[in-house]
Amino acid sequence: MNKPDKEEQILNLLKAAREDYISGEALSKKFGVTRASIWKNIHALMKQGYGIERRPNTGYKLISSPDKVLPAEIREGLETEYIGRELYCFNEAGSTNEIAMKLAEGAVTEGTVVIAEKQTAGKGRLGRKWLSPAGAGLWFSIILKPKISPQHSAKLTFVAGLAVLDAIRTVSGLQAGLKWPNDLLVNGKKVCGILTEIKSGPDIINYQVLGIGINVNISEKEFPEALRATATSLAQEAKKEVARLRLLKEILKNIETGYEVFKKEGFKQFLIRWKEHSVTLNRKVKVAGLLESWEGLALDIDEDCALIVRLDSGEKKRVLSGDVS
Amino acid sequence: MNKPDKEEQILNLLKAAREDYISGEALSKKFGVTRASIWKNIHALMKQGYGIERRPNTGYKLISSPDKVLPAEIREGLETEYIGRELYCFNEAGSTNEIAMKLAEGAVTEGTVVIAEKQTAGKGRLGRKWLSPAGAGLWFSIILKPKISPQHSAKLTFVAGLAVLDAIRTVSGLQAGLKWPNDLLVNGKKVCGILTEIKSGPDIINYQVLGIGINVNISEKEFPEALRATATSLAQEAKKEVARLRLLKEILKNIETGYEVFKKEGFKQFLIRWKEHSVTLNRKVKVAGLLESWEGLALDIDEDCALIVRLDSGEKKRVLSGDVS
Repeated sequence: MNKPDKEEQILNLLKAAREDYISGEALSKKFGVTRASIWKNIHALMKQGYGIERRPNTGYKLISSPDKVLPAEIREGLETEYIGRELYCFNEAGSTNEIAMKLAEGAVTEGTVVIAEKQTAGKGRLGRKWLSPAGAGLWFSIILKPKISPQHSAKLTFVAGLAVLDAIRTVSGLQAGLKWPNDLLVNGKKVCGILTEIKSGPDIINYQVLGIGINVNISEKEFPEALRATATSLAQEAKKEVARLRLLKEILKNIETGYEVFKKEGFKQFLIRWKEHSVTLNRKVKVAGLLESWEGLALDIDEDCALIVRLDSGEKKRVLSGDVS
Repeated sequence: MNKPDKEEQILNLLKAAREDYISGEALSKKFGVTRASIWKNIHALMKQGYGIERRPNTGYKLISSPDKVLPAEIREGLETEYIGRELYCFNEAGSTNEIAMKLAEGAVTEGTVVIAEKQTAGKGRLGRKWLSPAGAGLWFSIILKPKISPQHSAKLTFVAGLAVLDAIRTVSGLQAGLKWPNDLLVNGKKVCGILTEIKSGPDIINYQVLGIGINVNISEKEFPEALRATATSLAQEAKKEVARLRLLKEILKNIETGYEVFKKEGFKQFLIRWKEHSVTLNRKVKVAGLLESWEGLALDIDEDCALIVRLDSGEKKRVLSGDVS
C-alpha cells in the first residue's frame, strides 16, 4: 500500500470520529460501495491489529491502534512534504534497502519510504548482517534522487546522521554521538547504523537509498551475547520504552529539512555540526580500510567526508572508507 | 549466447578444417546428435552471415565469416583470461550499459561483455544520446567487480581510456588524445566516449560497468550535420577502413592488463600517462559543472581524477564532474 486507499480512508474517518460510531451505511454511501465491501476493509484493518468495535444497528468505532509501522500510523501527524508520503510497509522483509533499490529502478517518487517490522536479511556495511527483530526497532530506507555526483553521496549519510541524532534527543532525551563514517552511539554503544547505496553514472547519481536501522526497544536479552558489549538500544539507555512511530516521524521530518538545506546551501554547516557531535575525532583510532589498516590520531574530517588520521610516523592519511575502533 | 555452445563449437571445427569439408555424419557422431540437429546449427550460422558451402555426400565447408560482433568472431584470437570470455552479443539493443547493469544484478562473471551491432538508445553522459549506427562502430559494455570504494570508480574510466588509446594506435596507427573526463579525440574531434556506471554501497562498489562507444567506420555522411564539427570516426581520420573486431580484441586485452596492474600497483602510473596524453591540460577551458560554470586554465588532474582549473581570479577550482569546451 503506498498512497491512502479506501481502507486507509475508512480508518482515518474512524480516527476522526473518536468516541462516535460510524454506521456501515454511511460508509457505504460515502464510497459508493456495498456494506459487505466496507466490512471487508474493516476486517482487514482488524487483521492488521486495529481494535474496532462493531455494534449492531450502530456501526463501527476505533478502540485502539497497533504500535506497528503501518501506513496510516506513519502518515498521521507526519510533518513532511514528500518524505514518507509514499510508503511500502512490510510486516517482514528481507532487506528494506534491497527493496528500495529495486523500486528506485521504476517510476517511484522521491522520498518514498520502505519500512519493515522485521528484516530477515538486514544489511550492514561491508556485507555484514544487521540484527532487525520484529517490533523493537526501526528498519527503513528512503529513496532520494539528488542531483549530485557520486563522490558526494557520503554527504547525505552525514545529513541523515544528524537528522537521526536530533530526533533521538527530541523523542528520548538521549544525546547520541556520531561515529565515523555512519553510526550513532549512545554511551559508547551502537544504536543506529546508516547504509547508503547508490546507482550512479559518472556525473550524476540516478538514485540514492538511505537505509537506517535503529535499535529502539530491543532488550539486552534480545541481543546475541557477542553484540552486547558494543550494541545497545534507546530503551536500554533511556531506561524506558521509546515511542517508535514518533521517532520515525521526527526522523523523516528532520531528513527532509536537512536535505532541503543541503541542496540549497551546501554541506558546510552539516560538516561543522557533524564534527561537533563526533565521537571519533581527537582520539587514538585503529582504522581498518579495504586493504590496509592504520593506527593514529583521528585529526579531522574533510569536506568529502574522509577521515584524516595522523599516523604515529607523523604522516597524514586520508581514509575514505573503513572501520574505526 | 554467452559461453561456446554446440553451434559455436561446430563453427570452430569448420574454421579449423580450413579448405577441408567436414561431413554431417562426423559432426553428428562427435556431438551425439542427429544429422538434422547438426543441419539446424549450420542453418543458424548461415543466418548469422557465415558463408557455408554444403556439398552432397561430402559435407560442410566455411567460405566466409561476417564482419559482425558475434561470439565466435570475438573469441577467436582473443588474448584475455576473463574479459570478453562471457559474451552477450546483440544485433540490436537499446543500450548495452543498461543491459549490463541489469545482468550485473544476477550471477554474472566479472569481465562479461555486452555488445551490439547497433544501439537504438545508446547513452552518453548526462542523459545524452550516443549515436550508434549498425556495423560502423563498437558499442559495448564490460562488467567489472573491483573491490574499490565508489569514490575511486572514475579511475577505472581513466584506465579504460588509456587502453582504448593504445588499441587505436596499434590497430589504426592514429594517435588519439584524452579529453577530460572521458572522451578520446583524434585531430580534435571525438571518436570515443566512455560511460561508467556503478551500483555501490558506502564502502565498496557492487559492480561497475564500463560502457565504451567508438566511431570506427562511420562515414561523414552518417553523422548528423550538427555533429560533424565535433565528431569523427577512425576511418575518416585514417582514410581507410579500420578492422573493427581486431580493435575490439585489442581493447579487451589492454583493459584486462590495465585493470590487473591497477589492482596490484594502484593508479599512479595511469594518471601520469593519462596526463601525458591529455588534450585538456594547459589550455584555456570553459567547464560547465552540474550547477555552475567556470572559465580558466586547466592546470592539473589530481589523484581523484578531478580537474584543477585556475580561474581568471587566480582561485583554484577542483571540478569532479563537468563538460569542458
